[in-house]
Amino acid sequence: MRIGVLSKIMTEEEFEGALISPGSNLYYLTGLRIHEAGERPTLLVINRDGVHRLLAPSLYENSIRDFPVTFWHDGEDPYAKLSAILGELGISSGRLLVEDTMRADWLINVMRLGSFEFHPLGPVIRRLRMRKDIAELKLVKKAAEVVDEVFEEILSWDLVGMRERDLAFRIELAIRERSDGISFEPIVASGENGANPHHEPGERKLRKGDMVILDYGAKWEGYCSDITRTIALGRPDPKLVEIYEVVKEAQENAFLTVRDGVKAREVDRAARETIENAGYGRYFTHRTGHGLGLDVHEEPFIGPDGEVTLRNGMTFTIEPGIYVPGLGGVRIEDDVVVDGKGKRLTRADRSLVQL
Amino acid sequence: MRIGVLSKIMTEEEFEGALISPGSNLYYLTGLRIHEAGERPTLLVINRDGVHRLLAPSLYENSIRDFPVTFWHDGEDPYAKLSAILGELGISSGRLLVEDTMRADWLINVMRLGSFEFHPLGPVIRRLRMRKDIAELKLVKKAAEVVDEVFEEILSWDLVGMRERDLAFRIELAIRERSDGISFEPIVASGENGANPHHEPGERKLRKGDMVILDYGAKWEGYCSDITRTIALGRPDPKLVEIYEVVKEAQENAFLTVRDGVKAREVDRAARETIENAGYGRYFTHRTGHGLGLDVHEEPFIGPDGEVTLRNGMTFTIEPGIYVPGLGGVRIEDDVVVDGKGKRLTRADRSLVQL
Repeated sequence: MRIGVLSKIMTEEEFEGALISPGSNLYYLTGLRIHEAGERPTLLVINRDGVHRLLAPSLYENSIRDFPVTFWHDGEDPYAKLSAILGELGISSGRLLVEDTMRADWLINVMRLGSFEFHPLGPVIRRLRMRKDIAELKLVKKAAEVVDEVFEEILSWDLVGMRERDLAFRIELAIRERSDGISFEPIVASGENGANPHHEPGERKLRKGDMVILDYGAKWEGYCSDITRTIALGRPDPKLVEIYEVVKEAQENAFLTVRDGVKAREVDRAARETIENAGYGRYFTHRTGHGLGLDVHEEPFIGPDGEVTLRNGMTFTIEPGIYVPGLGGVRIEDDVVVDGKGKRLTRADRSLVQL
Repeated sequence: MRIGVLSKIMTEEEFEGALISPGSNLYYLTGLRIHEAGERPTLLVINRDGVHRLLAPSLYENSIRDFPVTFWHDGEDPYAKLSAILGELGISSGRLLVEDTMRADWLINVMRLGSFEFHPLGPVIRRLRMRKDIAELKLVKKAAEVVDEVFEEILSWDLVGMRERDLAFRIELAIRERSDGISFEPIVASGENGANPHHEPGERKLRKGDMVILDYGAKWEGYCSDITRTIALGRPDPKLVEIYEVVKEAQENAFLTVRDGVKAREVDRAARETIENAGYGRYFTHRTGHGLGLDVHEEPFIGPDGEVTLRNGMTFTIEPGIYVPGLGGVRIEDDVVVDGKGKRLTRADRSLVQL
């Protein structure tokens, strides 16, 4: 059915066909879970009437059922079979949508099969994927509940003296116990490391007086959550406590701006203005948030240039932060859905926890 | 220096330039560890004189040093900057090498920057990467030692009653304790599940009388190992014990065929003939092995069509198997280096362990 919606857009915008390699778009369109195809060409072909066929290596012969599929065996030329499928579906030239993350070597081989003009699928399919249906929202919510539970558990651990990377791993285990796994590698940034929003957890041990940024997410039947909390061990630098309150207010102001019909950039603006007015503008160096769904980063992006109009059913993060080199950082992130106004899906305590 | 070797091949084969996105080839050529660039274009450009420049998003500003790099910031057009780099390096048209795994949307944007003919980098760079130097061999060996140790540890566990997926996870933890992590998701295939060489560990609990295939690998400073052992819990079906001895002999015969100067397919032939002669030919459904290095699957592939001539310094797996639907399966896999003749890097016991 989702293939039908896509093919309607294809007709309207004069795309002759779409080529979709394994990933979240293929799953979204077909429900097929095809993992790690590696170098073996695996492609869903769709024409503008919605007629479609999957080309897949024979190792999937036992796992793909009830779906129009052509298998190719080791030793055969998969592109000859692809060419036959394109012929069967009446796709010989013209504008073709291509999965953004398809391997370049596959695309190079497709170039030789016809006179095509290639366009990335992403901007087209994101219009479908941005608004979640009820079944999807249930799964995002479930993934959000998992990270809330994990936060409760983290607070029960003896954190002082633990290495960042060991804490990150324990968080991963706690997520895996409760869900299909992590939606990205957990971030633990303690003390001065908190000043780098892209810090990778390392050897540094957590100390009394640290602010510690914890950023992690879970997957539930493919759908992602993503939460950040910043906690204090003992009594951190009063400057950081002040910063914490600014970030919390910025996050709340952004959240209160969310409603059906506002532009993404207005939500960003609310967070950014709060931080600028407190004098920390130059230390807020990233977007306010990003969409969440089958991918942990997807549309709508909540940034200064976010032209997407927020609509009911859209899910995204709100995660302003302040990062002061040499001192440390604070970030607070929730997952939000538009339902008239904004509703938080993550509900863990946002006031400063001091352990 | 490795960039110099690549540029020499580029000159000989009339490639004007190479575009390399993050992954093992970029690491191999530069030593730069650039993780998960996601959707933000990150590309190394090399011309045929070996002059090179990296285009990278500004989030790497603090982590990339002592390397010719141009950063682009959110809001800027990375392809305008790429176009400038191509101009600076004198690359405006002609044959261009492209990293096989580059995202298609990046390649679609590159198409608009000039009149290029694209070719996958893989077949060119694999000639460099297939033969490991001494420093690389040390790392593969280290990764192989890790999986040997983990096998010893597995044998000390109480396996009967454990779910496949829990055992797979414990194996992963044991690998992570000793190394940089897993080189792929461990496979545990017990009982009848052993008949599927691509089985994903599931809910089935290990039982007395099972043969259990354990296939896992470690990474050490980027370099991969990969081992398979099949163990017996209690007394398995005598047919499977017979099959075990056939696979063991096939693996040994393939190993004894390895030497500097033979073709990959001769090694495959030795394994395949042993299995065919025992009457199980149609149950050996995959290649005998694959190269190992920065990627866990790379050249040389050891299959019936393996035309690569094995040379000193090449590292690969030898892993014949027999898979009988409804009964189960056996696979035995070692990592091997060519050093005159073959030398095993994995040394865990290959005789049938009965627990």
